[in-house]
Amino acid sequence: MKKLCMILAVLASVMLTGCKSQECAPSALDVMMSRTSIRSFTGDPISREQLETILKAGMAAPTAMNGQPWRFVVVTDKDKIASVFASGFRGEMFTQAGAVIVVCGQTTQMRKPFGQPDAPEEEQPNMFWYEDCSAAAENILLAAHALGLGAVWTAGYPAMERVAPIAAALGIPEKVVPLCIIPVGVPAENPEPKDKWKPENIHWEQW
Amino acid sequence: MKKLCMILAVLASVMLTGCKSQECAPSALDVMMSRTSIRSFTGDPISREQLETILKAGMAAPTAMNGQPWRFVVVTDKDKIASVFASGFRGEMFTQAGAVIVVCGQTTQMRKPFGQPDAPEEEQPNMFWYEDCSAAAENILLAAHALGLGAVWTAGYPAMERVAPIAAALGIPEKVVPLCIIPVGVPAENPEPKDKWKPENIHWEQW
Repeated sequence: MKKLCMILAVLASVMLTGCKSQECAPSALDVMMSRTSIRSFTGDPISREQLETILKAGMAAPTAMNGQPWRFVVVTDKDKIASVFASGFRGEMFTQAGAVIVVCGQTTQMRKPFGQPDAPEEEQPNMFWYEDCSAAAENILLAAHALGLGAVWTAGYPAMERVAPIAAALGIPEKVVPLCIIPVGVPAENPEPKDKWKPENIHWEQW
Repeated sequence: MKKLCMILAVLASVMLTGCKSQECAPSALDVMMSRTSIRSFTGDPISREQLETILKAGMAAPTAMNGQPWRFVVVTDKDKIASVFASGFRGEMFTQAGAVIVVCGQTTQMRKPFGQPDAPEEEQPNMFWYEDCSAAAENILLAAHALGLGAVWTAGYPAMERVAPIAAALGIPEKVVPLCIIPVGVPAENPEPKDKWKPENIHWEQW
């Protein structure tokens, strides 16, 4: 009897520890529903490991014919962030960020001409680059939120008057275009996510 | 002693149940990293509740200036799916899907002319509609995967030769454009996700 009691006590204590260690991360649906744009940051840095996790999520997005047209420029240097990104509208959200991720797209791809398997590859336009890179940008926002960080999608292409000086300052080549500029940081605000659920935007079976 | 033993036994059994009920859903990062395109489905239906959960995730994506330009046409009728979507390339992935979600964008928006707060709203182009709708499409793919379903992004805009007959068949108005066509269903395949992590696609501090 004493032995059984000991076994039960050990079992109870093991399970207590086991239960505690099994604390759940928020589900993907929770992360999607609770994500919102964060435009105010504490100024704390973001670790290289966190940035690589975020970029891995970006590169897990789907791309047309597996083209992977995304290219990323990541700036963490405070002075450089200030000089490249902070001169425009709402510049302070960049200066307080831990990093700025510029999501770019390679607008051309090397392909064999259609129906000519023996011909050499040629440079051709990739007409899906901005869709693929937008999917990657959404994954980046979700991954940042999943890590407890904040981020916001700010416009790049096709607002070329904003894009051109940033591309020039970062040495981005001619056929690569910044789609969006994402400051990432430790949130200094905690806004409620917008409720954008509008059943009237769904047409069942037919418009 | 007997009483203590009973208490421990009850405690152990309660905790066993408690631990079991605390089974974790996969984290958002796991869902992003394990999602891959599913093109083969069992033919089983998708419930309205599941579709609404997926569409809620879609509508939780960010949009430029909160424009929410997305519109969704959801087709679940088997005959209609076959007649509208199954005539093209790889048509069988549509006929076996439980639903097809057409993610569309309203390409114009009603806005006051810039700097004229008292003027009436005018119809203006929305130059960010395809980025906003791409972010929604990525959330839709992730939500389907999070629910244990499969889905794949198939091309719409700007491949207009594919888009036009689908828009016509579904009665989609002139200024609304299908960005992508997503069959969703119970997976009949279990492919490994592609490893798309390429550190050479990241440029640190400068291109």
